Amino acid sequence: MNAVPSTLLQQTDQLSESVTRPIPGSRKIHVEGSRPDLRVAMREIVQTRTPTLFGGEENPPITVYDPSGPYTDPDVTIDLAAGLAPLRARWIEERGDTEALPALSSMFGRGREHDPKLDHVRFPGRALPRVAKAGANVTQMHYARRGIVTPEMEYVAIRENQRLDLVRDALLRQQHPGEAFGAHIQQVITPEFVRDEIARGRAILPNNINHPESEPMIIGRNFLTKINANIGNSAVSSGIAEEVEKLVWSIRWGGDTVMDLSTGKHIHETREWIIRNSPVPIGTVPIYQALEKVDGRAEELTWEIFRDTLIEQAEQGVDYFTIHAGVLLRYVPLTAKRVTGIVSRGGSIMAKWCLAHHRESFLYTHFEDICEIMKAYDVAFSLGDGLRPGCIADANDAAQFGELETLGELTKIAWKHDIQTMIEGPGHVPMQLIKENMDKQLVECGEAPFYTLGPLTTDIAPGYDHITSAIGAAMIGWYGCAMLCYVTPKEHLGLPNREDVRDGIMAYKIAAHAADLAKGHPGAQVRDNALSKARFEFRWQDQFHLGLDPEKAEAFHDETLPKDAHKAAHFCSMCGPHFCSMKITQDVRDYAAGQGVEAAQAIEAGMAEKSAEFRAQGAEVYRPG
Amino acid sequence: MNAVPSTLLQQTDQLSESVTRPIPGSRKIHVEGSRPDLRVAMREIVQTRTPTLFGGEENPPITVYDPSGPYTDPDVTIDLAAGLAPLRARWIEERGDTEALPALSSMFGRGREHDPKLDHVRFPGRALPRVAKAGANVTQMHYARRGIVTPEMEYVAIRENQRLDLVRDALLRQQHPGEAFGAHIQQVITPEFVRDEIARGRAILPNNINHPESEPMIIGRNFLTKINANIGNSAVSSGIAEEVEKLVWSIRWGGDTVMDLSTGKHIHETREWIIRNSPVPIGTVPIYQALEKVDGRAEELTWEIFRDTLIEQAEQGVDYFTIHAGVLLRYVPLTAKRVTGIVSRGGSIMAKWCLAHHRESFLYTHFEDICEIMKAYDVAFSLGDGLRPGCIADANDAAQFGELETLGELTKIAWKHDIQTMIEGPGHVPMQLIKENMDKQLVECGEAPFYTLGPLTTDIAPGYDHITSAIGAAMIGWYGCAMLCYVTPKEHLGLPNREDVRDGIMAYKIAAHAADLAKGHPGAQVRDNALSKARFEFRWQDQFHLGLDPEKAEAFHDETLPKDAHKAAHFCSMCGPHFCSMKITQDVRDYAAGQGVEAAQAIEAGMAEKSAEFRAQGAEVYRPG
Repeated sequence: MNAVPSTLLQQTDQLSESVTRPIPGSRKIHVEGSRPDLRVAMREIVQTRTPTLFGGEENPPITVYDPSGPYTDPDVTIDLAAGLAPLRARWIEERGDTEALPALSSMFGRGREHDPKLDHVRFPGRALPRVAKAGANVTQMHYARRGIVTPEMEYVAIRENQRLDLVRDALLRQQHPGEAFGAHIQQVITPEFVRDEIARGRAILPNNINHPESEPMIIGRNFLTKINANIGNSAVSSGIAEEVEKLVWSIRWGGDTVMDLSTGKHIHETREWIIRNSPVPIGTVPIYQALEKVDGRAEELTWEIFRDTLIEQAEQGVDYFTIHAGVLLRYVPLTAKRVTGIVSRGGSIMAKWCLAHHRESFLYTHFEDICEIMKAYDVAFSLGDGLRPGCIADANDAAQFGELETLGELTKIAWKHDIQTMIEGPGHVPMQLIKENMDKQLVECGEAPFYTLGPLTTDIAPGYDHITSAIGAAMIGWYGCAMLCYVTPKEHLGLPNREDVRDGIMAYKIAAHAADLAKGHPGAQVRDNALSKARFEFRWQDQFHLGLDPEKAEAFHDETLPKDAHKAAHFCSMCGPHFCSMKITQDVRDYAAGQGVEAAQAIEAGMAEKSAEFRAQGAEVYRPG
Repeated sequence: MNAVPSTLLQQTDQLSESVTRPIPGSRKIHVEGSRPDLRVAMREIVQTRTPTLFGGEENPPITVYDPSGPYTDPDVTIDLAAGLAPLRARWIEERGDTEALPALSSMFGRGREHDPKLDHVRFPGRALPRVAKAGANVTQMHYARRGIVTPEMEYVAIRENQRLDLVRDALLRQQHPGEAFGAHIQQVITPEFVRDEIARGRAILPNNINHPESEPMIIGRNFLTKINANIGNSAVSSGIAEEVEKLVWSIRWGGDTVMDLSTGKHIHETREWIIRNSPVPIGTVPIYQALEKVDGRAEELTWEIFRDTLIEQAEQGVDYFTIHAGVLLRYVPLTAKRVTGIVSRGGSIMAKWCLAHHRESFLYTHFEDICEIMKAYDVAFSLGDGLRPGCIADANDAAQFGELETLGELTKIAWKHDIQTMIEGPGHVPMQLIKENMDKQLVECGEAPFYTLGPLTTDIAPGYDHITSAIGAAMIGWYGCAMLCYVTPKEHLGLPNREDVRDGIMAYKIAAHAADLAKGHPGAQVRDNALSKARFEFRWQDQFHLGLDPEKAEAFHDETLPKDAHKAAHFCSMCGPHFCSMKITQDVRDYAAGQGVEAAQAIEAGMAEKSAEFRAQGAEVYRPG
């Protein structure tokens, strides 16, 4: 510990305070599974009683999905320098197919470990990583295919159900029929269903054996739609403390996975801090770091350098790797006439390498070697769309769809090795071309989960691309996309700060939830119903608490009506005390109730008669004498 | 003039400076039509030359639709206390079917005019209004149906084309085929097409003869998708100067029409200031003001009070009235079991009135009397959806669709009087139920333009409802909705401030443009293509200028890389100087060009062969020796 300087520890101490304040109106709960160490974290939003004026009934607490981890648990003491508790360590050990390594396997990792110049940034006291025993395959897909339900699968099943069985109120339970476009939506998620989906390749449960701190989650179109938040520093910005803060901030607002896209210095150490403190799966794009190792000269990349990077990161605990193995030499010329060429960083690196060497990339030629590494740690593939369109004009072109077909071929190879695999998607796509992306992905990739960036539905709004893309994200989520990679307002312009991260996550939580509603996911509408009931009954605090961002909702309300008294007031801040449609509606309801049901029916019958009369007279407006 | 106190004049002076600064990189242009006083305002975005490295070519200026009016014209001196020049005054006079009134016709208007207590807020020096000569019908629909192309129609035709004929560059002209769902999208908009659409009732051109300051615009699904911004004070907020500022601010960012939803005091005077200074059509909900006249007691409303309010506002120049005439007594009980009852203010007022009097509202029973007023000033109907759903649970229910059917009947009556009519729509609707709204509206209302609020696709994001609703708005715009009423981040929570207005408008400009792209509106993609080309070529300033909000784009960029030098830098601010996909892509392109086309083709052929080989070997990954 003496190696870690006080500066970084102080910074990490500070941030742990600023981003872990309680979420207003919520409490952390844990639902126990089949064994006492299987405790599934959820968030429960407490509601107040309906005002007497409107009926005075109790309102049940609402359970919501909660990726924020121990940071929002008042019973847990956060020590970033120690990392989170290894929730899954025992489950991993129990399986008996892994062993602790005597030393790091990667050259690079070993070099960093003993470099005194890195003492001031190194994460203190990490245990040595684990690896599969010789010949073992430790992926969740491998267990699933052998019919084994792991504790991780059970965790996920409990988590996905969100205690929907406890919601009995008819008003809260009501939901419109969905349109699921062929998805197999379940009324209740069982551990067996989770296993079966993973076995079929229709879902992935990314959890590297070296990331035992992670709370299991699942990505697949028959489950809740997930979102990913990108963080990461670059040569021109950011430091370790700031990135860890962004991680905690991201999951606080609902990020289901986080990708660390760092490209600057201390990339290895930053990642270690992030993983040790992350309750959500962490993804990376290993080629970024590999490129740093050859000082940015793409053509000097080699399989050996890349392989060492994969092992380095796998032993740190990265849960999924974006690998741009579909960028084939023959697709590269197809991008030459595009408006924006190749915009994926990974894609452009590989394209440059392919052209420089005039042969297929080592990602493609060594794909099975990569598989061997993945299955020794249970790292999932996120097969990268290196040729995704960077503008509306380039959407759905030959290069993009050519690569997608190759990703489909690679998926089958990955599955041969029982490696969990998802597929990355575009990018920039106008609305009328979005569905074709989803449909083609399902066909080409055998229903492997789709994981898309946006898509952005227009190019003309720099500064607002969280919105241009939330539109496309909601639609492709509805059509079947399993995870939506967020876009922040800074996209195309700069690196997101904390508020940008929050804005991006909110836009994507909205998109994902809108998709779940449209698909008819069981219970998706409960929270909408509860919030709307609270809104109607002027339970302002409940409305704030049930929202995705209680803090902002309350702050906005207070800008107009800052007095506390107004939060119980029976009028909304838009219309003032004497002119509120909610209040008038309540009057109407009281009036109707006063008349009795018979009166209401009589009105209806009488009016139906008059209406018939009206139509009989040639639809002239009825006028009383 | 001496009646107007210096305080308000000073305020209006100040705001005229703060919201009229030039839009960066743009200049105002005017395209002349068939007569010298028909000069159609547009905005031209000037582009710089492509850097020599990337080809060095000239980039043409891009013309964009511009509702900002004279405020962004450096040749015009703005004097809010004098109002804008009456652009259409001569066209109206020339038609010879109107006459100047000797005095205001409404009781209320006359009372305000001579009340010395209002001297400090009254708009100075307005000329007396005009009205149709006895028996005349002065609506654009009436001219259209007689085969007359008005200067307003010609103005609209030129405006809608946005000088697309000048765009010759193949890269800029490229566009994906759209899916228009039965809309009649034209390659070129002719004045005759505008006339025909208005005659059929498929489009409206809202321009009251008493609002000659307005620049003609059209609302219909075969034209560009429009957006509306709501402004207005209430009992708890805002003043005249602030509302005028919001108007100018709204149109600066792209509001096509503005609704003044004021409910506070000085509602009459506020409206006068707004209309006199508005180059866009102004809509109102007259029942709000009528209710103020009876001190908020809905049941005391009468046809006489409402009639006087309509005339008062029509003579001020309001261009369209929201009239909730479809709230029938028989629909009211259908809302009693809703989660959020009746949320439309107008709808709840009328429902309360109907129940109190146990008969149909005066809006319904006097509908033809209302028509008589509308056609004397050319005020368009916006038939209000008083029973729109206020939450996801209440979407597409019997009350909502019952009212829509009644609005269809009323549309036919309005059309009998040649009154321009559009239909208001929801509200809160999950994605899978949106299309049904559009399809039903087209059928029930004979293709009259649909004008929707959102719809919001989930209830759970108070503070972010500009996003929940932009998703729905983009989709319904694609399906055929003609105008999208914006929602700001403050929806459900408070009154929007200036930044909220901007955020709301941006979200809706995005939705409308995404809809135009998806429909395949001719030329819709030009701006996307130009911006993406600029982005690819590192023409940062051009990228900012071509965006919907150049100021925010530049500010965001400067947060990361504030130095001016970086705006010409050949790397983007996300990745730093040595690691940029755009730069790498350019290298790839140069490399490919160096190899010559033959080489690229050879690569392709060679790879195709290898690919065939690969497949023949059972799709095992190709490995070099």
